[in-house]
Amino acid sequence: MEEIVENVPLSEILQRIECLQSLLVREGLDGALIFQNVDLYYYAGTIQSSILFIPSEGRPVLMVQKNQTRARAETCLDTVVPLAKGRGSMAEVLGDCGYELKGRIGLELDVIPAALYIWLSGRFERCRWEDVSSLIRRQRMCKSAYEVERVRRAARILDEGFRTLCRVIREGMTELEVDGRMALIARRLGHMGILRMRGWNQEMTHAHVLSGGSGAMSSFLNSAHAGEGTTPAMAQGAGFRRLGRNEPIGIDYAVGVDGYVGDQFRTFVIGCLPARLQAAHDLSFDIHRRFEDMAGPGVNCADLYAMALNEAERAGLGAYFMGHGEGRVHFIGHGIGLEIDEFPIVAPGFRKPLEPGMVLALEPKFVFPGEGVVGIEDDYLVTESGVERITLTDQTVMKVCSG
Amino acid sequence: MEEIVENVPLSEILQRIECLQSLLVREGLDGALIFQNVDLYYYAGTIQSSILFIPSEGRPVLMVQKNQTRARAETCLDTVVPLAKGRGSMAEVLGDCGYELKGRIGLELDVIPAALYIWLSGRFERCRWEDVSSLIRRQRMCKSAYEVERVRRAARILDEGFRTLCRVIREGMTELEVDGRMALIARRLGHMGILRMRGWNQEMTHAHVLSGGSGAMSSFLNSAHAGEGTTPAMAQGAGFRRLGRNEPIGIDYAVGVDGYVGDQFRTFVIGCLPARLQAAHDLSFDIHRRFEDMAGPGVNCADLYAMALNEAERAGLGAYFMGHGEGRVHFIGHGIGLEIDEFPIVAPGFRKPLEPGMVLALEPKFVFPGEGVVGIEDDYLVTESGVERITLTDQTVMKVCSG
Repeated sequence: MEEIVENVPLSEILQRIECLQSLLVREGLDGALIFQNVDLYYYAGTIQSSILFIPSEGRPVLMVQKNQTRARAETCLDTVVPLAKGRGSMAEVLGDCGYELKGRIGLELDVIPAALYIWLSGRFERCRWEDVSSLIRRQRMCKSAYEVERVRRAARILDEGFRTLCRVIREGMTELEVDGRMALIARRLGHMGILRMRGWNQEMTHAHVLSGGSGAMSSFLNSAHAGEGTTPAMAQGAGFRRLGRNEPIGIDYAVGVDGYVGDQFRTFVIGCLPARLQAAHDLSFDIHRRFEDMAGPGVNCADLYAMALNEAERAGLGAYFMGHGEGRVHFIGHGIGLEIDEFPIVAPGFRKPLEPGMVLALEPKFVFPGEGVVGIEDDYLVTESGVERITLTDQTVMKVCSG
Repeated sequence: MEEIVENVPLSEILQRIECLQSLLVREGLDGALIFQNVDLYYYAGTIQSSILFIPSEGRPVLMVQKNQTRARAETCLDTVVPLAKGRGSMAEVLGDCGYELKGRIGLELDVIPAALYIWLSGRFERCRWEDVSSLIRRQRMCKSAYEVERVRRAARILDEGFRTLCRVIREGMTELEVDGRMALIARRLGHMGILRMRGWNQEMTHAHVLSGGSGAMSSFLNSAHAGEGTTPAMAQGAGFRRLGRNEPIGIDYAVGVDGYVGDQFRTFVIGCLPARLQAAHDLSFDIHRRFEDMAGPGVNCADLYAMALNEAERAGLGAYFMGHGEGRVHFIGHGIGLEIDEFPIVAPGFRKPLEPGMVLALEPKFVFPGEGVVGIEDDYLVTESGVERITLTDQTVMKVCSG
């Protein structure tokens, strides 16, 4: 683990701003106002309380409410100006920089609160607001070498975590105990302490530790598994259940390094999996192999999903694929980066080809009511010629040492 | 720790709905649509993906998108109906229940995304949307005995956590290691695995472990301290710094039980604090005593803040009170409950009297540039006659056993 705090390099920021500006021009927009922490970090390298104005042409302006010193230390943008709390002075501040807020201006309408939108609409009557969320999400979909390296660092932490868990897990231990130990391993190794999901109300615990039937409980979360959790106030993740012998212990583990997430799933067992579940796990392995053979630039996400679904159905496991009954979700993979629910989505509805630089988590899983969840989730980079597995951990069922 | 998953009791839900309905009537509203997880949990006892319609009169309707089974198991409301994804059928579903969406309808405009607001505005042209966020937040400000008991359970976990830390912390250990150990202790004892903050972009790590000068680093967070963290992508919390001797180790620790948060801060030291910092810590203790003498129903929050500020200035510590320089915040306490930034706020601008049932975290702290943060944060319940400390841990500087 690199034990230093690193800023986003200037070359990254310049390239990202330039790319967004060309997208703004193409869409006929005059600029964009960026508010959300993740997008601020992407374009300015800081999440200090601020608003970033990116004109379609010219220098971006970072208007900082708090903390001025830290924002200046973190960003490599050169136009950094203070903004009084309450955003009242935004027009003035931008005016001083030679900009007037008018015309077609982009906003992150999927994440900014309604009250902020209403305030902006009342304040800047000469603006026509446009949603630039999907434009931003599509830009962020393809990662630079710098970004991929952060996901690789996260993958190293996950690998050490999974291997340590084989030695730590014991029969009779609660799911919560395992979850806590995972947090300890991850933080000790430099996990940044938060995971971000863009979807509205899609909250997450930092991990899922789901043993036996708990792995078959679904919830509000857009995931094949959720678990019981400790309370309906969270309704997911590790709970009070104690780990048993010869049942799957499904562990979904995600950590972040410099903002970038690695997101992987392994099936653990104390003893042996029941034959049907072992067969389903083997099929998850096979789907990963088929994916590696088939995926690469130009390959359609919907076709990759169809391949996996077809494999599951041919094996007679269609009813358990990616959830059971109402709990079933209709995707087998998703982009990862600064958020855990990025593009692309490997789903029937996502009829877009893969492109070099995309990073995604592929997670063909099988959920058996009353018995649990099995499968493998690994992270992949789309290269010029195919895909490369970023995950370091091997893909077999992880046998717990004590068992 | 109670090792069972508990639903919110019917009596709680009925009382909360009735109270909101009387507030809606008083404000001349025809109903409210509740979307956000925390508010859904408060009024319906579930965060399954759903929309709750609360008419100003009559039965509320919980429209569930996912998961139907789990929503029905978690809520004690009796009108629970499926809603197709995309919210397209909402008018129809409500029509079947005898309601028409029209007139003045409340929304949580501070938290719902702009895109949702725009969609609703286009879809329901006969509605006039009104912001009911502060109405909801004011209702949630006063807790029932059921709710206070959950904060007490969280306080028990925090107490065990702080006492364990005295035995665990060692010179040379990283802040991150301590943070991870805190996560392990909390999860093992049943912490629900998330902390919620309502404020836009106000993200949190689950704890702050800030040693020496790191405790004096402020950030975007509305808090007297933030720490360096591991990356500008998070910009707060534990970092790679190793704990030293004779320096303050400020630990802000929050856990949730059944949705309800306990939020406390203790100053740890390996060896002894420098005299000036020890004096500031003693003053934090004195401010807590003054608060306990003075606070109770009818006492104004602004007056409590003024008392604390006055104490700090009289002791010549005004410049370090609640942060230093730009990092200074202008409050010494905040409500806690389902969110960590609830009402009341013990601040000059919050000219409201305390009421029985309010639960708040009082956190008079002192921040010394280059040296760190000291003080005590404890949780209090406003009773009929005064305040009661909910925190179990004693208020002295916590001496690390190894030192």
